[in-house]
Amino acid sequence: MRTLTVDGNEACSKTAYLFTEMAGIYPITPSSTMAEHIDEWSNNDKLNIFNDKVKVVEMQSEAGAAGFVHGALTSGVLASTFTASQGLLLMIPNMYKMAGEMLPGVIHVAARSLSTHALSIFGDHQDIYACRSTGFCMLASSSVQDASYLAGVAHLSAIEASLPFLHFFDGFRTSHEINKINVLEDDDYKKMINKEALDKFRKRALNPLNPKTKGTNMNDDIYFQMTEARNKDYENVVNIVAKYMNKINELAGTNYKPFNYYGSKKARNIIIAMGSINETIKEVIDNSNDEIGLIEVHLYRPFSKEYLLNEIPDTVENIAVLDRTKEAGSTGEPLYLDVVAALKDKDINIVGGRYGLSSKNTTPAYIDSVYKMLNSKPVNNFTIGIEDDVTNKSLKPTDLKINKHKEFLIFGFGSDGMVSASKSIIKIVGNNTDKDVQGYFQYDSKKSGGITIGHLRFSNTEIKSTYYVENPELIVLTKDTYFEQFNMLDNIKENGIFIICSERKLEDIINMIPKKTIDIIKNRKIKVFVSRASELALKHNLRNKISMIVEAQIMYLSNLIDYNEFLSYQEDAIKKQFSKKGKEIIDENIKAIRESSDYLEELNIDTESTVELSDYKNVYEALNARCGNDLKVSDFLEFRDGTYESGTSKLDKRMISTTVPRWINENCITCNQCSMVCPHSVIRPYLLSQEEYDNAPQMIKDRCIKMLNPLYKDYYFVI
Amino acid sequence: MRTLTVDGNEACSKTAYLFTEMAGIYPITPSSTMAEHIDEWSNNDKLNIFNDKVKVVEMQSEAGAAGFVHGALTSGVLASTFTASQGLLLMIPNMYKMAGEMLPGVIHVAARSLSTHALSIFGDHQDIYACRSTGFCMLASSSVQDASYLAGVAHLSAIEASLPFLHFFDGFRTSHEINKINVLEDDDYKKMINKEALDKFRKRALNPLNPKTKGTNMNDDIYFQMTEARNKDYENVVNIVAKYMNKINELAGTNYKPFNYYGSKKARNIIIAMGSINETIKEVIDNSNDEIGLIEVHLYRPFSKEYLLNEIPDTVENIAVLDRTKEAGSTGEPLYLDVVAALKDKDINIVGGRYGLSSKNTTPAYIDSVYKMLNSKPVNNFTIGIEDDVTNKSLKPTDLKINKHKEFLIFGFGSDGMVSASKSIIKIVGNNTDKDVQGYFQYDSKKSGGITIGHLRFSNTEIKSTYYVENPELIVLTKDTYFEQFNMLDNIKENGIFIICSERKLEDIINMIPKKTIDIIKNRKIKVFVSRASELALKHNLRNKISMIVEAQIMYLSNLIDYNEFLSYQEDAIKKQFSKKGKEIIDENIKAIRESSDYLEELNIDTESTVELSDYKNVYEALNARCGNDLKVSDFLEFRDGTYESGTSKLDKRMISTTVPRWINENCITCNQCSMVCPHSVIRPYLLSQEEYDNAPQMIKDRCIKMLNPLYKDYYFVI
Repeated sequence: MRTLTVDGNEACSKTAYLFTEMAGIYPITPSSTMAEHIDEWSNNDKLNIFNDKVKVVEMQSEAGAAGFVHGALTSGVLASTFTASQGLLLMIPNMYKMAGEMLPGVIHVAARSLSTHALSIFGDHQDIYACRSTGFCMLASSSVQDASYLAGVAHLSAIEASLPFLHFFDGFRTSHEINKINVLEDDDYKKMINKEALDKFRKRALNPLNPKTKGTNMNDDIYFQMTEARNKDYENVVNIVAKYMNKINELAGTNYKPFNYYGSKKARNIIIAMGSINETIKEVIDNSNDEIGLIEVHLYRPFSKEYLLNEIPDTVENIAVLDRTKEAGSTGEPLYLDVVAALKDKDINIVGGRYGLSSKNTTPAYIDSVYKMLNSKPVNNFTIGIEDDVTNKSLKPTDLKINKHKEFLIFGFGSDGMVSASKSIIKIVGNNTDKDVQGYFQYDSKKSGGITIGHLRFSNTEIKSTYYVENPELIVLTKDTYFEQFNMLDNIKENGIFIICSERKLEDIINMIPKKTIDIIKNRKIKVFVSRASELALKHNLRNKISMIVEAQIMYLSNLIDYNEFLSYQEDAIKKQFSKKGKEIIDENIKAIRESSDYLEELNIDTESTVELSDYKNVYEALNARCGNDLKVSDFLEFRDGTYESGTSKLDKRMISTTVPRWINENCITCNQCSMVCPHSVIRPYLLSQEEYDNAPQMIKDRCIKMLNPLYKDYYFVI
Repeated sequence: MRTLTVDGNEACSKTAYLFTEMAGIYPITPSSTMAEHIDEWSNNDKLNIFNDKVKVVEMQSEAGAAGFVHGALTSGVLASTFTASQGLLLMIPNMYKMAGEMLPGVIHVAARSLSTHALSIFGDHQDIYACRSTGFCMLASSSVQDASYLAGVAHLSAIEASLPFLHFFDGFRTSHEINKINVLEDDDYKKMINKEALDKFRKRALNPLNPKTKGTNMNDDIYFQMTEARNKDYENVVNIVAKYMNKINELAGTNYKPFNYYGSKKARNIIIAMGSINETIKEVIDNSNDEIGLIEVHLYRPFSKEYLLNEIPDTVENIAVLDRTKEAGSTGEPLYLDVVAALKDKDINIVGGRYGLSSKNTTPAYIDSVYKMLNSKPVNNFTIGIEDDVTNKSLKPTDLKINKHKEFLIFGFGSDGMVSASKSIIKIVGNNTDKDVQGYFQYDSKKSGGITIGHLRFSNTEIKSTYYVENPELIVLTKDTYFEQFNMLDNIKENGIFIICSERKLEDIINMIPKKTIDIIKNRKIKVFVSRASELALKHNLRNKISMIVEAQIMYLSNLIDYNEFLSYQEDAIKKQFSKKGKEIIDENIKAIRESSDYLEELNIDTESTVELSDYKNVYEALNARCGNDLKVSDFLEFRDGTYESGTSKLDKRMISTTVPRWINENCITCNQCSMVCPHSVIRPYLLSQEEYDNAPQMIKDRCIKMLNPLYKDYYFVI
């Protein structure tokens, strides 16, 4: 079996490519790289299992992409698309059509939050739940590994069932998590395809040689009967999906079922869930001696009561259904409603809870709290991962922490290269050792220049931890001014390593470190190193490209694998990456990483610190201090419609520009475009009241326009 | 209390106008007339309760209309829209935004089928269920009367709750059913509005004098908490809605609650349902001595478990939840899932069933079958209104018929004026007598020239029959050639009246009537009259405008109200309608209706008939014979993806054109547009194979183009 170290988007799209003849795309975060991979591979003449390359067409929106897929399918072409969130919402009308017309299209979704009070690019199941009425069959992947295999199940089943499939996995957590996975060969999939069903689909193609009437109007006399005429097709789906799961199980040694049970055969309390949370739940079960279990939902639509009942042990008394959404005004979230209806004749107590909206971190301690709640007194309509001090629906996390793996935490700033360096470490270790690896990257909203946090895990056993690193033994900081802004070391392990990239003198660095951090360093016996990567980069004419040097330094200090072996892999990577940039650049980079261990200075701290991180006074300051997770529901009551005061960027001293624009009266043609051109809002137009106008100097008056809009009739606009 | 004889769209939009400052519209069947009324009233300077007229803006699609509403609300303006079906689907992304931002917009929906295997303009709840995740509050009206009052509850509650509302009623059945209703005065609504809440909404307006930040990006740290911060707002909605229902109850003498119970206080078996079916269910309960009942759902979102439990009698053992949709692959339809979850701790047996997709007629006999099924052996996942001989989910109708009202059935052809004439009868009787009235109109898909069937009811008691006329005592036929196509008299009452409009001789008419119809006429002692309306119309220079004459003739024969009194009302209507056409036209029309009773000839039939209606051989013939309702699920297995053979219009001899186009070789410039211009496909382009080309005469060869598309490389295109 081949292994690959890839993220979920790549894992999924690799399989999707094989079954796709045409892809209608309109990439949207966090699904974008799926469509981008398909496009790239097509440009590189990669072949699908029909020995052809995929025809990729980018449309004007996701509505168009779905229309393209619908049209291609109608013409007898296997078509796919890739989307998320609002993009998926725009596909809904076409999805009803594809399902009603029984077309085997596949939509792969990196499930993402919807825009409600605010936009969010992060992951939850709001988008896929919004499609649950469309008649699409729906498959859920819990991991990067699943994304590879279940993508295949989706395409294979769609062809045989002659119904469209939506295959989804968690946006960011699975789509962007790098993991070591096994993959089947293209030929394995090719052999599985139901040729008869495929042939039947081809023959349904609408074209001038095969004229038919489609997309007609129907009236009250027959529409209902025709809808019910598709009942058997949906009834057949679950067995078809199970069949293809078994085919993959045989080849891959996996154990996929429409619903998978995990845990004690004598469990009293179990959880039912979909998506990446299942990995964390399995980890909690692995670490528990209690009689607990999990139903991992893979086939969400059609929802098979029979398959579900088959998996639930007879001993089960309580079930908590976890939904990664919030449907305001409903009697419960969607998966909960399905489970309650499916088990309504069973004497089992079922409660529902919400977790993980917009990628909210859900740790083992929260999963543990769910099992504890079930065991003591089951409550319905709970939440985990937040503190709800208003409607008091949240469960308190227990103190469970599972620290089975080696963990690194790497703080960088957007575009400093540390995410790539972290990915390089993950891929080198993943591809060249027996270790399992995991890389997940947090970004703030400021993109270039914002904060990036790499969460890296390495282990000799399988890594199932689908949440942030909780107990790192190595922490890296590439921007020393972050000391002033937020805590980094809170979770560092005893005897851990802390690497600070800085050009400052050692004593100046020490003087920047807050008291709390100093205390942690001393109490937990942390070894602190200052990386002089910039100096080394300068020496080799690499300007400010420090990431490859820091990558080597991390591996030098971490003892994760043999350092010289690592360097040789890193050299290979450098040769590949810079192959078009010439020998000199390759040589300088290699020299730099070879010398990198010499550019580390140990920092011994024996002084006290008087630097205190200031407390945050409002939501905005809390966000800037990276303490948003500590905010309670009550902190948002005032802004619960998503409205916030304007002009908060003034509180955000990011110092990302070294120049400041200036308004020059003589040059001004009163076009007012300066206000739009200056990204820092240094130059702003503003309104004057009559009184302010009267008291203004003539220079200002000369630049005033009397407002004509009656709403502002007493105001003057200054440009 | 004022009464009006109006349809549901007019009833709803009359109330909606009062609370609307801006309407973003993109009219779609069957909701169109709501937006059109608003536009018309605005043009006529009608004032809303803010003493202003509504600003109406038509956008590029329903997506734009929803965006307009969102934008207007953000600016502190009370905004509404009106839509259905695919139009509502296009609003979904904006609906999530309006809910998340807590904006009190209102969408009025004439609920309609979605395009799946086929498009349908008719009614069911697929569209509104597709929005149940958006966070909109949802109110359901069961009747034209409700549409007037609950529209008010929607607007009033939206303002006080600061949340958006979707108010819906059944497309066509309620939107187009004409009914006599009571209405509140504008001032009554004005007094009810929560001024404090309205003021708060105004102050939230985003404008340059009130700058704020909205529609931001949020990350995993706080999105979840903010979502949960709106819990209390949703918890409050049900009491707010109940409060406004009570205010209306006080003024109107109604009894609206979020859930209304109807039926026996000791019921063992009850139905739970939404929409117009509730009226039929009430009618069945009124006519039954069994211990049965109904929960009529008015507030669907937020779904209040407490209010529901309050209404259900303790004696209830079995519940059937009726859903007007089919969500393929789900564990059950949406309302069923809600009820199961809400009552999961109760010892009540709950089953779910589907009915009425795309306006499928649901008669008392089917409702009766549901109660009978509950009473004997409750089965889940049933259907009513169709015969499902494939998955056997359908219940057989009982023989229950409820004939409490006077019923007329009027067969016309599109644009012959008989729908208007029927509406005129309904309005005259409704507005000038104490009688309750109901008018519902069936159209086929051919619009002008197609079949129209008017279902008219008149009664001294309240009419709750939201299904087709089942036992007419008077039937009208305005196009005698329909005799050849389908049965009309099947349901006519003993001693009923049958009016045939024809210019043929009496004996020729008799010779056209099929045997089955003759038998019915004889056996049930039907009085048959031939209307010579065309002759009378010709006499008064009214060309082929026979509808007003037939209207008078119907009233002459029916004895519904005093004929002379009716004529004077009809004269008033004529004066109003033709006020701009001059005295002469008015006079001729009045003369014509005055003479109309003289242009009726009684037709005595004592001969046998040998005319037989031919049996239909396939689905298409069945549809043409208006027997689509008799088709079973198995009849559609072959076409269950909505595909049908092409060229079936040749089977459809409608004789609607008196001229036939001819292709003239000398004039032909091979533009090929003749094929598009001829509505009857008399001139068609076609493909020739190589062999056909070789054997074709030179004249054809001269008009051939060799196809370049490789798919058709051996073909020639003839134009």
